[in-house]
Amino acid sequence: MNAEIIAVGSEMLTPFRQDTNSLYITEKLNELGVAVDFKTIAGDRLQQLTDAVRHALGRVDIVVLSGGLGPTEDDLTREAVAAALGVRLKRDPDLIAHLYARAASRRMAITRNNEKQADVIEGAIMLPNKLGSAPGQWLDTVLGKHRKLAMLLPGPPHELKPMFQEECLPRLKEIVPKRHIATRVLKAAMIGESAADARIAPIYTQYKDVETTILAHMGDIELRLSCTKGILDLAQARVDELAGKVEDELEDLVYSSQGETLEQIVLYHLEMRGATLAVAESCTGGMVAERLTSVSGSSRSFVGGAVVYSNRLKTDLAGVDPQLIAKHGAVSQEVAIALAEGIRERCGSTLGLGITGIAGPGGGTEEKPVGLVFCAVSDADGTEFVEKRFPGDRDGIRFYASQQGLDLVRRRLM
Amino acid sequence: MNAEIIAVGSEMLTPFRQDTNSLYITEKLNELGVAVDFKTIAGDRLQQLTDAVRHALGRVDIVVLSGGLGPTEDDLTREAVAAALGVRLKRDPDLIAHLYARAASRRMAITRNNEKQADVIEGAIMLPNKLGSAPGQWLDTVLGKHRKLAMLLPGPPHELKPMFQEECLPRLKEIVPKRHIATRVLKAAMIGESAADARIAPIYTQYKDVETTILAHMGDIELRLSCTKGILDLAQARVDELAGKVEDELEDLVYSSQGETLEQIVLYHLEMRGATLAVAESCTGGMVAERLTSVSGSSRSFVGGAVVYSNRLKTDLAGVDPQLIAKHGAVSQEVAIALAEGIRERCGSTLGLGITGIAGPGGGTEEKPVGLVFCAVSDADGTEFVEKRFPGDRDGIRFYASQQGLDLVRRRLM
Repeated sequence: MNAEIIAVGSEMLTPFRQDTNSLYITEKLNELGVAVDFKTIAGDRLQQLTDAVRHALGRVDIVVLSGGLGPTEDDLTREAVAAALGVRLKRDPDLIAHLYARAASRRMAITRNNEKQADVIEGAIMLPNKLGSAPGQWLDTVLGKHRKLAMLLPGPPHELKPMFQEECLPRLKEIVPKRHIATRVLKAAMIGESAADARIAPIYTQYKDVETTILAHMGDIELRLSCTKGILDLAQARVDELAGKVEDELEDLVYSSQGETLEQIVLYHLEMRGATLAVAESCTGGMVAERLTSVSGSSRSFVGGAVVYSNRLKTDLAGVDPQLIAKHGAVSQEVAIALAEGIRERCGSTLGLGITGIAGPGGGTEEKPVGLVFCAVSDADGTEFVEKRFPGDRDGIRFYASQQGLDLVRRRLM
Repeated sequence: MNAEIIAVGSEMLTPFRQDTNSLYITEKLNELGVAVDFKTIAGDRLQQLTDAVRHALGRVDIVVLSGGLGPTEDDLTREAVAAALGVRLKRDPDLIAHLYARAASRRMAITRNNEKQADVIEGAIMLPNKLGSAPGQWLDTVLGKHRKLAMLLPGPPHELKPMFQEECLPRLKEIVPKRHIATRVLKAAMIGESAADARIAPIYTQYKDVETTILAHMGDIELRLSCTKGILDLAQARVDELAGKVEDELEDLVYSSQGETLEQIVLYHLEMRGATLAVAESCTGGMVAERLTSVSGSSRSFVGGAVVYSNRLKTDLAGVDPQLIAKHGAVSQEVAIALAEGIRERCGSTLGLGITGIAGPGGGTEEKPVGLVFCAVSDADGTEFVEKRFPGDRDGIRFYASQQGLDLVRRRLM
């Protein structure tokens, strides 16, 4: 079975607000083996909302609506679903009584327009709302020859989640055929999306029963594998088999096989070896340190370092010889190496990482263009460096450079 | 005219990824006076995507698609739009040549599957992509009796935004009937949303013709004012009048009256005074430096500093007396002050900023709980500090602390 989630509310059609309920609903539906095939966001207009509901009922088995159940004039979800199904709304006197009783128990004034919250779509079951006034509704109906489920849920997440959990999930479990989904997330650094895909498409396309999604983000590839079967072990075995073959193909480009971030992996390898790291960052301006320290417990292996944006600080905080900077320029392999070695010595860490480059948009020359980055890593066995030219804007180049620096440390530790 | 935004990609139908491009696109369309009436998220399946495009073309004037233009098998946006319009795709030999030339200039290997990026929808204009390989497409066509615009844009935001700005906006401006919208964005630091609203609601509710939206994000309040009139000057005057009254009420809490970020404002004030700044960060782990250096040209006033995650580095890089740490603890006003003064001296900067705190989730005690943060700023006239207890998780506390540190520098400069 498949589903569509419709988030109702004009505020989610502004530049300022996102629908987030759908992430929760998707997670719960996926756990049942129901795929979400569409998400729609519609505003508070009856005709448009009715159109969206009608179209959803035509293309999926399950329609989950959130929002538009309140008492105001622009709460139109009940009306739209009734119109889309061609059935009537009936005001339920028991529900009206309940609304007034609820308001009275909270010593809240209640206005007449609240009564529209007692409008029940013909054929629907009302779903109690423990944390708000608007009840939800559950519809199990037949359209043409197809069974269709629709559920109307309140918009506030703290009302929607318990209602979905307690009222919708038990009903769905009785209707949805039992399935089991196994997933794996592989991550690779410093390889482009198309280069990665060219290498692994011949592998994953042979696994028709595993859904493979590639997500690419500046020097970071995420490969999501998902398989649905009647028996969980079978699904897991297929996903693991494919994951193994992808790892064999991409070899040490793969840094994570369980979805960890690159910074988590670097910290993990450091801790496994009882090693510590210090960084001296020029063009990344603290991004490597920020990424590492975003991980809880990072202080066990990351000691800190220096943001050496000015040449003076490259010397004062990381011990780079000013003559080296004068001779080769601040953006050079020599300075990257001196930063890595200098910060390691200064901080007494097992490893030192140095990064220098031109993030742009200004500062580039023909010889040293925007995007040119040198990273160096140093330990007791010596120092190695890489020279790269990264594409993109300032943000992109800085992220690539931080990714390259972290990956260089990871490789040194392996 | 109205619009629908279709975000293409199965990853956005998982619990893990949100479409964010639509926020940017909505903002730009709204500025032209185009309302976004629907947003749809569709996966990488040809039939479903074709259905979504066809339905969108039936209900709105402008369809903006993002994603699905890459070289992989599941990049199907071109095919879906062509199928929805009932026209053909033609592979453009010039574009193929361009793709190979682009790859060669970057010394990147290119695989055969990249050629599908040269498929042009019949009647479409290709939109160059300066920051990626996948070109966009622009369609201006007639369906039934209605003029329809469709644009196919790449998914990565750093490719989509410049393409929309440079290629789509000028074309849209010629087609969309002219309206005049004046906007202002005020920003305030270190005040909560409800506290801010309680003070300014009595003011902005009197301006019925100005739409006021308050966005709150951990120590940062954004107040968006927008007014639409037939004459731009009239709209601008209303917005400016309201902005002035809000600034009078919130006084120096307002750090920006034109939408600048706090880091931009700090750098602006530094440069105006010919001053420089160095930072010594413990719990923020480089976040302040990263935020400052994300601004192009920041090297003119930000020299760098130290990430002093370990106690040893607090001494070695920022000159903090180890006995001070032993006596008061690393998280204390004394150490924050010593960090600010030490890093200023070490770096020879006009101002020094020191931050130390407990970001959690571990490390808190009854006396010094998670969320406790000390920030100090030092200059030739002396040193001042603030002590705060921030709510939220590790990410939240770190962001609050970086915000507090930057705001402290801003106030010192004013």
